Amino acid sequence: MATAKQTRKKEPVILITNDDGVTAPGIRNLIESVKGLGKIVVVAPDKPQSGMGHAITIGYPLRLHAVSLFEGVEAWQCSGTPVDCVKLAVDKVLHKKPDICLSGINHGANHSINVIYSGTMSAAIEASIEHIPSIGFSLLNFSMEADFTAARHYARKLVEQVLALKNKDNHLCLNVNIPNVDKSLIKGMKFCRQAYAKYDEEFDERKDPAGRRYFWLTGEFKNFDKGKDTDVWALQHNYVSVVPVQFDLTHYELKKQLEKKLKF
Amino acid sequence: MATAKQTRKKEPVILITNDDGVTAPGIRNLIESVKGLGKIVVVAPDKPQSGMGHAITIGYPLRLHAVSLFEGVEAWQCSGTPVDCVKLAVDKVLHKKPDICLSGINHGANHSINVIYSGTMSAAIEASIEHIPSIGFSLLNFSMEADFTAARHYARKLVEQVLALKNKDNHLCLNVNIPNVDKSLIKGMKFCRQAYAKYDEEFDERKDPAGRRYFWLTGEFKNFDKGKDTDVWALQHNYVSVVPVQFDLTHYELKKQLEKKLKF
Repeated sequence: MATAKQTRKKEPVILITNDDGVTAPGIRNLIESVKGLGKIVVVAPDKPQSGMGHAITIGYPLRLHAVSLFEGVEAWQCSGTPVDCVKLAVDKVLHKKPDICLSGINHGANHSINVIYSGTMSAAIEASIEHIPSIGFSLLNFSMEADFTAARHYARKLVEQVLALKNKDNHLCLNVNIPNVDKSLIKGMKFCRQAYAKYDEEFDERKDPAGRRYFWLTGEFKNFDKGKDTDVWALQHNYVSVVPVQFDLTHYELKKQLEKKLKF
Repeated sequence: MATAKQTRKKEPVILITNDDGVTAPGIRNLIESVKGLGKIVVVAPDKPQSGMGHAITIGYPLRLHAVSLFEGVEAWQCSGTPVDCVKLAVDKVLHKKPDICLSGINHGANHSINVIYSGTMSAAIEASIEHIPSIGFSLLNFSMEADFTAARHYARKLVEQVLALKNKDNHLCLNVNIPNVDKSLIKGMKFCRQAYAKYDEEFDERKDPAGRRYFWLTGEFKNFDKGKDTDVWALQHNYVSVVPVQFDLTHYELKKQLEKKLKF
């Protein structure tokens, strides 16, 4: 049995992934923000995988290549989705479960309904299904030149606390969004629920050079949720939103209602 | 204002999609099973999209082509994911929301954690986000020669009842799985919760002809959930499992716990 001294010495293993790809500035900022908190291993997509949701690669094999991108940090790029990266990392890179999985920092918002479409958050959810505590981080700025100063500050603060949690739920999963304002304007972190806010979508119809039509997804973001306890509200008021996330999709309330209404 | 007579006459619009692609036997069986219940319009992927989860197409435009596959039924194939199909159907095919969206019949199980990876269920969830009541159907048989007799019977029975529901929650979404046994052995439908059952995954490592390694996802399905109210239990006991599904991923219980434990 390990002594208390040995236990204290054991460095936590921190798996880092994202959906913008291993070369995105966001993942570099996430690595920098948690340096010194444990042994960092990166397994991330070899190309942008935004909007991939919880997709996994079934019909094709996956590739995995070591890359030398981050000083002193073991890193791999994977040909698959963010969820594939987490699965491959556990089975073929770490050969065990890490102590925590961090995903991001995403370039762009993953609050409200975006959590469902987000590759960043799906990687975090995948980890939590596998009993690996996880946190997904997103900054409300799509630009590759975004300023990650505030995001880095709050990422480190939160990861330190979650790593230190005793008897933590190992399905713990947090969806963290950072407002796109100067660090000095941020009021702190706030626990929230997911807002019912989404894109009102339309497709932009065009003709290709051969005269055949094609469609681009476009949309306007709308908040239908007037609650002051939502992630969208918190972000609009310069808080970092923290939404604990579950993977049990059972709608228990609807189940109760329908048990009375439908005849099976 | 419409009179009661006119209202009664109005035929419901039934949007049908899937993730196995427009040519899969499952979607043909779903169309046959609900014929006569409304005006059916099919918008489905032009190729298999299993395991695509809630992926949407962002970086590429989409194509949409009319196909003549089902007698007397308007049908389109789309180059995108199942979720793309639902979005495109509403905006560019129907030009309004259908009265119900049906997805499937999937070739293979979508019970327990599979709901998160499933393109079939993600299409249904997408519809429910958009206030379109929806049902995803899956038969526990991967074969293209599967017998859909029982699945057809229960699909029709359920769709009839859901269409007839008054004041229904328009976010209604059901995940329906049909056991792979003869119709005569099925004990009926049963409301369930999502089991905590999942694949214990491993990757099969191989070498390509050039000596470079690649990985195939494989796994063994394991049920860690001993409850008798789960979809996995129901299916093992020859019930059709019906799980009401939500898209609010907020983990309210974990939120309460963490509000006490973390210092923000």
